[in-house]
Amino acid sequence: MRATVIYAVGDVRVQDVPDAALIDPGDALVRITRACICGSDLWPYRTMEPNPHGRRMGHEFIGIVEDLGADVATLKRGDLVVAPFVISDGTCDFCVAGLPTSCRAREDWGGDRVDAGQGEAVRVPHADGTLVPLPVGPDDALMPSLLTLSDVFCTGHHAAISARVRAGATVAVIGDGAVGLCGVLAARRLGAERIIILGRHRDRTDLALEFGATDVVAERGEEAAERLRTLTADNGVESVLECVGLEDAFLTALDIVRPGGTIGRVGVPQFGGLPNARASFVKNVTIAGGIAPARAYIPELMPDVLEGRIEPGRVFDRTIGLEEVPDGYRAMDDREAIKVMVKP
Amino acid sequence: MRATVIYAVGDVRVQDVPDAALIDPGDALVRITRACICGSDLWPYRTMEPNPHGRRMGHEFIGIVEDLGADVATLKRGDLVVAPFVISDGTCDFCVAGLPTSCRAREDWGGDRVDAGQGEAVRVPHADGTLVPLPVGPDDALMPSLLTLSDVFCTGHHAAISARVRAGATVAVIGDGAVGLCGVLAARRLGAERIIILGRHRDRTDLALEFGATDVVAERGEEAAERLRTLTADNGVESVLECVGLEDAFLTALDIVRPGGTIGRVGVPQFGGLPNARASFVKNVTIAGGIAPARAYIPELMPDVLEGRIEPGRVFDRTIGLEEVPDGYRAMDDREAIKVMVKP
Repeated sequence: MRATVIYAVGDVRVQDVPDAALIDPGDALVRITRACICGSDLWPYRTMEPNPHGRRMGHEFIGIVEDLGADVATLKRGDLVVAPFVISDGTCDFCVAGLPTSCRAREDWGGDRVDAGQGEAVRVPHADGTLVPLPVGPDDALMPSLLTLSDVFCTGHHAAISARVRAGATVAVIGDGAVGLCGVLAARRLGAERIIILGRHRDRTDLALEFGATDVVAERGEEAAERLRTLTADNGVESVLECVGLEDAFLTALDIVRPGGTIGRVGVPQFGGLPNARASFVKNVTIAGGIAPARAYIPELMPDVLEGRIEPGRVFDRTIGLEEVPDGYRAMDDREAIKVMVKP
Repeated sequence: MRATVIYAVGDVRVQDVPDAALIDPGDALVRITRACICGSDLWPYRTMEPNPHGRRMGHEFIGIVEDLGADVATLKRGDLVVAPFVISDGTCDFCVAGLPTSCRAREDWGGDRVDAGQGEAVRVPHADGTLVPLPVGPDDALMPSLLTLSDVFCTGHHAAISARVRAGATVAVIGDGAVGLCGVLAARRLGAERIIILGRHRDRTDLALEFGATDVVAERGEEAAERLRTLTADNGVESVLECVGLEDAFLTALDIVRPGGTIGRVGVPQFGGLPNARASFVKNVTIAGGIAPARAYIPELMPDVLEGRIEPGRVFDRTIGLEEVPDGYRAMDDREAIKVMVKP
């Protein structure tokens, strides 16, 4: 079968790989109908050490169950399913506590013996714990929005939950990538009254406004903080959604958060330590968040997608075939596209 | 009058200073009856750049109101009062929200035009907002415990609240100084079932056990983490109270906290960034806390002291006169004393 493999900076290839097949009795074999490229896929695309064996890519997908191991109890052949970006068993104490990303049996797409999402098919370990059936057909118009439940919308939601967004709150969202845009939508869904997005790309901040943002701050660094202070009458904001993962973004978050406020971070940190431990200490700022436990959020978020109350799938602004995936990476890296959907 | 001034590392003097006197209409003049030396006073004692003008010291005290400005409404002459370690007006939005350490009129003891606590008397700006009357006499046996409400017990309580200590929880307290010991007591008061203190000083960890600790870990660093994993069946703890402020202590906190758990930090950070942003990200660890809003906690905690349910004053193991304050610093720095009370 065909699948995506990355070898070095900028070197993404779609190539022949061994066919996905059942191995363990808890597995499902899933034929992929929709996949996508994640902002976090761009980190290896930009910085990866060359690896002659390559690494399989893709951790967000929807597909049809083609075959099942003997132990799978909750799925049947032909089910359309969405997969969260981490494999979890659904039964360990962390899964039960709503933190499947810390599952004791956690596996990662593209890891040893596990296929990845940017390909024709995958073996899904712990299928009962990992996959969520969708009550629609594989070509339903809701596909883009349902696909965001695999990662990007759940990650935006996690930023908002971690930042303790409350009804009526004033909130800032740092980053106008797909996660930041989903953070805006999630904050709106949770009832935030004022949502200020920090971003410089007009097409993206325009979508943010449609998602519920009330203000756009295009400045960066100290100028952004200055403008925030003006917008909030020198108070700062109660909740900051840090959706970038760069040190400067975190420093801006720290600068604009109100004393006693909370930073919800979901950008994978591309730095060593959380800077300025003393500033957060003096302001009593809570720093929360991390890798989003998407699997735990899907049951809560899916009805809003199915019933049309939210449309996170609007973050997809390009659809490509599997063979075009390398160009999809390039388009996202060049900021030609916000987020790219793949139809294998 | 006599008061304490620090000039350089190890150079603490008790000397003549101008008498404390009313300046603003919101002031109180307070004759100090009890003061103490804070663990945070040891940071300048150990690291201060020489300053020929010196810096007045002390931010924890109890005293008798001797005189009042015309605007003070809630106090009268002769009242015995406890002062929190930050001056706040009690009326701004941050004070009303329970964060007096971010008061818009905040002043600090020993700052410009403000006396400090290790002396004979102080001018107290914003007396209505800052001071809390005590319903006992100045030589009551409860003085040591009531004095801890000015800082150290409120700080331990803030660590526990920030770490989201819940009834029945398993909790770790890093540091066996007076704050750590108060953190144990606060965690116990909030209903923690298992309280593991990390500390190497037998006399202190013995007091921790009396305060409600259930386990003592005397190891440090990786060995401490290893022992914690054994004690908690490899789960880590839900709440860590970081009561030190050194980078190693924070790294230990990060190591022993359970995924999804919380670190409540109250040790003034003696480092730049909160190390290992990626570890806290992957584990979804919440980092909360900071400078304790003592003034906001006093009304809630005082009844437990007055009614004898808790005895945080046991952290004082030495009492000295004002002229002996320099030796009090030395004794705490040498770990001869846990915490030193001063009777001017």
